[in-house]
Amino acid sequence: MRSNSKRALLLEAAARIVKEEGAAKLTLDAVAQEAGVSKGGLLHHFASKEALIKGLVEHITDTFVADMEGRVKRDQRETGKWSRAYVASTFQGGSESDGLTTALIAALFAKPELLGRFREQYDSWQNEIQSDGMDPVLSTIIRLATDGLWFAELFGFGLLDDGLRSQVQARLTQWTEGEART
Amino acid sequence: MRSNSKRALLLEAAARIVKEEGAAKLTLDAVAQEAGVSKGGLLHHFASKEALIKGLVEHITDTFVADMEGRVKRDQRETGKWSRAYVASTFQGGSESDGLTTALIAALFAKPELLGRFREQYDSWQNEIQSDGMDPVLSTIIRLATDGLWFAELFGFGLLDDGLRSQVQARLTQWTEGEART
Repeated sequence: MRSNSKRALLLEAAARIVKEEGAAKLTLDAVAQEAGVSKGGLLHHFASKEALIKGLVEHITDTFVADMEGRVKRDQRETGKWSRAYVASTFQGGSESDGLTTALIAALFAKPELLGRFREQYDSWQNEIQSDGMDPVLSTIIRLATDGLWFAELFGFGLLDDGLRSQVQARLTQWTEGEART
Repeated sequence: MRSNSKRALLLEAAARIVKEEGAAKLTLDAVAQEAGVSKGGLLHHFASKEALIKGLVEHITDTFVADMEGRVKRDQRETGKWSRAYVASTFQGGSESDGLTTALIAALFAKPELLGRFREQYDSWQNEIQSDGMDPVLSTIIRLATDGLWFAELFGFGLLDDGLRSQVQARLTQWTEGEART
């Protein structure tokens, strides 16, 4: 097994434990067992639980940012492109919570200081959203509604059925394109 | 000290620990010490850590629901009254995270099954929001944006400055009153 894929396997195992058993059950021993990797093999990649949580946060943040930046680059229209990308990248996640995302948030509560990478990136893309030519009040509402969807699916409450979810995504996207209909 | 106020004191101490040290540090001993109450005194109110977390979740949920229902009853206008109340009750929290709210979410990760009361109530008021006469896509966006604000302030990322926060609240409220401007 290549080293990178073993690392990914360990991160996925950690995410599964958090999702299914709660963040309190996240230990290095549990992760090694869940991944079918020896404790030594795990320690080679993650020397401590903090290193594992940090790895999760970085993996999720970087994946999300890469997806959003790809959309921004491909977007032909300047105005609203960051808001559009933010809506699209978040909504594509599907209505089932992504295990890695679950782990991100869950982990933060155990070690809030590990939020660092995510917080920096979040502030950075919010700055882009605020300055991509839209009315800042409307772009902020679009961002907050998108975050609201993400959290609802993360926690599994107040879920939207697929039809309403698509309509919400379409309406938010229309707004980024300058359509004035509420 | 009256029994009710000691209970409140214990809940506040638990919330402070979660907020300042993380959910992993929430133990009955730590709560007793933080509240300046004997372990026996604490156990009289909360026989276990689960009972304490359940107490927190119920306290926060009931306080929020009572506030929102009061607004609905006082509202002269039928259409959009639940959406309006949801925006108002959430935004009044101030831009600093409320300690009890922090504790609610933090606790959920340790014991997701204790989410019960909150989840039921959430589903119940979402039903009201969906059926208070507004376009359901717009009322859903208002709800999601309101949740997004709440989560941002809970986690302390992507915070809005006070001016933008007020403008967002005003715009969402206008939408509940049937004003069509995005």
